[in-house]
Amino acid sequence: MSDRLQTDRHGRLRHFLTIEGLGREQLIQILDTAESFAALPGRRVKKVPLLRGRIVTNLFFENSTRTRTTFELAAKLLSADVVNFNVSTSATAKGETLLDTLRTLQAMHTDMFVVRHASSGAAHFIARHVAPGVSVVNAGDGWHAHPTQAMLDMFTIRRHKGDFTPLRVAIVGDIRHSRVARSQIMALNTLGVTEVRVIGPATLMPAEVRSLGVHQFHDLDAGLEDVDVVIMLRLQKERMDSALLPSEHEYFQLYGLTERRLARTRPDAIVMHPGPINRGVEIASEVADGPRSVILQQVSHGIAVRMAVMSLVLGSAGESGS
Amino acid sequence: MSDRLQTDRHGRLRHFLTIEGLGREQLIQILDTAESFAALPGRRVKKVPLLRGRIVTNLFFENSTRTRTTFELAAKLLSADVVNFNVSTSATAKGETLLDTLRTLQAMHTDMFVVRHASSGAAHFIARHVAPGVSVVNAGDGWHAHPTQAMLDMFTIRRHKGDFTPLRVAIVGDIRHSRVARSQIMALNTLGVTEVRVIGPATLMPAEVRSLGVHQFHDLDAGLEDVDVVIMLRLQKERMDSALLPSEHEYFQLYGLTERRLARTRPDAIVMHPGPINRGVEIASEVADGPRSVILQQVSHGIAVRMAVMSLVLGSAGESGS
Amino acid sequence: MSDRLQTDRHGRLRHFLTIEGLGREQLIQILDTAESFAALPGRRVKKVPLLRGRIVTNLFFENSTRTRTTFELAAKLLSADVVNFNVSTSATAKGETLLDTLRTLQAMHTDMFVVRHASSGAAHFIARHVAPGVSVVNAGDGWHAHPTQAMLDMFTIRRHKGDFTPLRVAIVGDIRHSRVARSQIMALNTLGVTEVRVIGPATLMPAEVRSLGVHQFHDLDAGLEDVDVVIMLRLQKERMDSALLPSEHEYFQLYGLTERRLARTRPDAIVMHPGPINRGVEIASEVADGPRSVILQQVSHGIAVRMAVMSLVLGSAGESGS
Repeated sequence: MSDRLQTDRHGRLRHFLTIEGLGREQLIQILDTAESFAALPGRRVKKVPLLRGRIVTNLFFENSTRTRTTFELAAKLLSADVVNFNVSTSATAKGETLLDTLRTLQAMHTDMFVVRHASSGAAHFIARHVAPGVSVVNAGDGWHAHPTQAMLDMFTIRRHKGDFTPLRVAIVGDIRHSRVARSQIMALNTLGVTEVRVIGPATLMPAEVRSLGVHQFHDLDAGLEDVDVVIMLRLQKERMDSALLPSEHEYFQLYGLTERRLARTRPDAIVMHPGPINRGVEIASEVADGPRSVILQQVSHGIAVRMAVMSLVLGSAGESGS
Repeated sequence: MSDRLQTDRHGRLRHFLTIEGLGREQLIQILDTAESFAALPGRRVKKVPLLRGRIVTNLFFENSTRTRTTFELAAKLLSADVVNFNVSTSATAKGETLLDTLRTLQAMHTDMFVVRHASSGAAHFIARHVAPGVSVVNAGDGWHAHPTQAMLDMFTIRRHKGDFTPLRVAIVGDIRHSRVARSQIMALNTLGVTEVRVIGPATLMPAEVRSLGVHQFHDLDAGLEDVDVVIMLRLQKERMDSALLPSEHEYFQLYGLTERRLARTRPDAIVMHPGPINRGVEIASEVADGPRSVILQQVSHGIAVRMAVMSLVLGSAGESGS
Repeated sequence: MSDRLQTDRHGRLRHFLTIEGLGREQLIQILDTAESFAALPGRRVKKVPLLRGRIVTNLFFENSTRTRTTFELAAKLLSADVVNFNVSTSATAKGETLLDTLRTLQAMHTDMFVVRHASSGAAHFIARHVAPGVSVVNAGDGWHAHPTQAMLDMFTIRRHKGDFTPLRVAIVGDIRHSRVARSQIMALNTLGVTEVRVIGPATLMPAEVRSLGVHQFHDLDAGLEDVDVVIMLRLQKERMDSALLPSEHEYFQLYGLTERRLARTRPDAIVMHPGPINRGVEIASEVADGPRSVILQQVSHGIAVRMAVMSLVLGSAGESGS
């Protein structure tokens, strides 16, 4: 399904909804394109006129200042005009249906919707209903996918490790409720790493874990043994209140990443986290601020990767449209 | 009054506050200018540098995401810089008077105020107090006027019908509380249509209906007979709670536009609605999504018409100023 | 402390946090630079490409639409891209620390933070933690400083009076809780005026008033005698409820600026106010709207002064960075 929807008949990206169904070459193309936008030493980012005159609409049904800001910046650095459409305060609140809101924004000449929604599949739903020349980028839908986050993680890994093939990567935390983890696992497997491990309590493992092509660990020390990359997930504190999780203190004892535990990984292993971090819950400050942490680089790479995705899908849509 | 305030001594638009007092040639000039900004087939809109370095301030005293977004986009496509000034969260909340807020924003080099206010006459009040070089565009004031909405409707009609002269146009719904209807009636009569009809329950007809130059109908079937254009108004659901209106279901039975009823119009009649639409209340989905509906074209034309109005008033203000 | 933090080893501004520690030449440089951005007669402001491709982040921990808007406009007129980061709705609300939020925004390639915070010293704290190439501009921190407001006041005084040396300047109102007054006193003394007077009730004088290099008056008539410039402060009505202040009416009787009182000043004295003004509380409408009032000019000058500060600190940061 996804493959058909998000690529055109030449295999070019028309939307970016999920990693699922994309091939290694397509992921590499995103990474290579992002490379051309990445900040040079000296941290000045290049502003380019690639999307000048194009209109990008941030359609956020769920508040996420951080993600919205990275997409807004990426669009502005491509010289696009950005409209932030806060759905809760909009016509939808007056009883307009989602499709009517969508068609109205499209009629305002939107070239791309960046969609964030609490329900899995929302971005796909929208992509199925936009006009031929309009692209959709998934900025996170429910527990399903957050593909630009996964790609910025891949970009960060490639910058530090070069080749994906020999890598062992561990993803630690609440795998079950993480759209980021799902997208990461698919991307890592597509890019051909040696092994993907998921580490966490049994209550936070997804039911379909066996079909994901990962090795499952419930013990953090065992799971970290010899890995090249550790990806910590953000713990949603809301889940603490449910029966799914022990206390923050207990969680940190079992699954918090400390210097001592990090010693089990390979000596040049890097530590990643999508942010915002909960210090002392899923990660110790000494690790978050330590020499192995590439957490802030991930943020910077997020701009370059989003610029890449936006310019690729609009390039493709522009050609296939009209 | 309006004529003097919104045009300079050469008859050029300096503000755009109301259709009242404008002549046929002035309306045609807006339509012709909008034509130059309208999206070409292929739906890419042209970004032009006409208002580069100019500052447009959206001064919205009433929340309207949709209208604000169309003005913001129109300004950006003219390369202006846009300031969104949410009045409720601003200094006015600290006890500053409206005129002090206005003068302050003007001192920040605002070239144009786009004003939305719940009180009739607010845009006129502001236009009377701005400096010579500053323009005011009315984005809806109380029950009084919404002239850019009326002009985008005229633009849509002209694109489909060419000549206004032979047309019979019906406006259906809550005429009494509709600033859009007032502006439409004036524009249609100024442009010389054969007949303007207003259709709705007696409780929703304005007291001054006889002086507006329209024919009044309380029966939808009779009113739709042989018309070329049907303009549905949005039903403000808030009024349902008052005694003015029957239930939604009853309203739809009496005044909802269905395929069956549409058959009474001329075969090539078009259906318009300012949006957002209440499906199954004032309009059936089969009509809203049907081949006669030009509702989404109205949205697109709204960008072009607002670009036209903005460039015309600033062109005129620029010459008459300083 | 401030001096070391906000200038580089060549004495060039790297941040703009406070007037304290800056020399006369540095203040004059800001005023001269602002002169080049000031609106020419005809009130069209020049848009310049000085900060094209640079990212300015408004980091407002305290709501201030007016101040944020002037910084946003100044940045846009310098062709920078602006990100408005509303801290209360952001990741900080999810438990992220201030420093993590700051580092994340910095990793998004922010070149400058414009900081508004309710706590004194917040801008300094942030300036101590940003990366070498990143600048911080204080847009008001607690009771401590509001240096761009002070500099736009100096700019306004210089435009009207030319030379600072012979001037007597009176600041009237709640000196104790005013970050603006603190910054103004420092700037005026650094620029070498003859005398700075502070006028207000004893309860609203700061404890350290003797060390500030000012003359203190509790009687308005006496304090206004022969001054060249009167700077009225905004009365924070919130303080009315505390025991610090009499009623609005009583306050106006004692410290409200009227035409009658203004007669005590020099005949060409100007009247200033940072806005928004409380008419009939600290200032009579006849004075606020009278020929001596330069209140709206202050607003316009605020754009030019902020453009000057932004271009100076980024010019310096750009050279010292990387």
